[in-house]
Amino acid sequence: MTTDNRPLILISNDDGYQAKGINYLADTLADIADILVCAPDSARSGFSCAFSATTPLTLTHRRSDESRGIEVWSSNGTPVDCVKLALSELCPRRPDLVVGGINHGDNASVNTHYSGTMGIVMEGAMKHIPSVAFSLCDFSADADFTPLHDYLLSITRRILADGLPDGVCLNVNFPKTQTFEGVRMCRMSGGAWENELTKCHHPRGYDYYWMVGHYRNEEPEASDTDRWALDHGYVAITPTRTDVTAYDCLNLTI
Amino acid sequence: MTTDNRPLILISNDDGYQAKGINYLADTLADIADILVCAPDSARSGFSCAFSATTPLTLTHRRSDESRGIEVWSSNGTPVDCVKLALSELCPRRPDLVVGGINHGDNASVNTHYSGTMGIVMEGAMKHIPSVAFSLCDFSADADFTPLHDYLLSITRRILADGLPDGVCLNVNFPKTQTFEGVRMCRMSGGAWENELTKCHHPRGYDYYWMVGHYRNEEPEASDTDRWALDHGYVAITPTRTDVTAYDCLNLTI
Repeated sequence: MTTDNRPLILISNDDGYQAKGINYLADTLADIADILVCAPDSARSGFSCAFSATTPLTLTHRRSDESRGIEVWSSNGTPVDCVKLALSELCPRRPDLVVGGINHGDNASVNTHYSGTMGIVMEGAMKHIPSVAFSLCDFSADADFTPLHDYLLSITRRILADGLPDGVCLNVNFPKTQTFEGVRMCRMSGGAWENELTKCHHPRGYDYYWMVGHYRNEEPEASDTDRWALDHGYVAITPTRTDVTAYDCLNLTI
Repeated sequence: MTTDNRPLILISNDDGYQAKGINYLADTLADIADILVCAPDSARSGFSCAFSATTPLTLTHRRSDESRGIEVWSSNGTPVDCVKLALSELCPRRPDLVVGGINHGDNASVNTHYSGTMGIVMEGAMKHIPSVAFSLCDFSADADFTPLHDYLLSITRRILADGLPDGVCLNVNFPKTQTFEGVRMCRMSGGAWENELTKCHHPRGYDYYWMVGHYRNEEPEASDTDRWALDHGYVAITPTRTDVTAYDCLNLTI
């Protein structure tokens, strides 16, 4: 089924190449494009745009499904490393699209900054390739991705056909539900993580900490945000910029 | 010298607590504030906003200089972990300022997204604390930070006095020179890393890769960018947003 006439989609994630989400995504999008998966060997949640400055990187071929046009590789690196490695070493041609996900868990609000899934699509956008991240508000390893099926295809088809503005990627979050109220274009909600560290005592006598915490929505009434959309059953699409200049502050006197 | 009347500045970096840059910064700013350093045990360059979702985190007390009001801790975590740990476990009061650096190497243009130094100040800004990152265009471990001295103090004093707009941090980059042409408020330059991977062959017969590459300025003629300022001898200050919504794309039809 692989042909040079089909679009090529590069897929990565931060849950690892074996995660249910990325495999559901690859299988779904293989209906309309050749698929190259290059994803971390294991989970790399919270890796943001991190890359490996000092670690030697490796690539491992995992499987080929020639009948469907799917190639799967993994790497010991970060999600961003996977994109860089795939573009440099694996892609038979320049991808038409970079897709991150499907993430097990949301990437709305400030999670945008911590997310390895968003790191993937920021990297794609910085390389001037249209890029979209898909995330589902369900952290479970066996999350049900089937309600997303038609949306994954329609959003992907739309971007393959029309592209995206240079330097802008899409952060698409789905609520955990069987049916959606619709799709909303959203801004990133103001919010913050609180009580993030839990102290524990090691048997050898020292303290250590686990990063956990809970998210606090700082503007729960604002109906134009990604969190509001998700809390009300909508698919939230947040267009996201790689240029993070605060243009309205260029006249600050420092 | 430590008093509750002096401002408190939290300092971290991505080069590790022993780096020359962070120690020069702490020593300089101790003239005007109490200093709490919490920085990685060793170098964490390229860690972006990454946090440790699955690693138990530890804190190690490294030194106290009570006469100058400096406390130094380190952690096995990422730069962002260090900020979260310090705010949760170490700070005697809410810091008046979060400072990242001084980074050994620039964090202009797209490096903003990869930089652990910028991760520190994005974290500070997401916690609504005024935050500023200092970086010098010199990667050497023994870089000369003395030309920065007066600028570090004046910029820090200015922010302590007047604050910063909520959700905006400063990315301050210094060219490698003994004197500066002046200070310019800049936007983030368009640019990209190229030829990022160098393939090597392991004695056991497999390939591995080092991330290196070189930066290409995509708009060398534009005089309003951070890269232009640095290339022309100016201190570049880029105000940087935590809200990365592409507001001009909210009307896209997806």
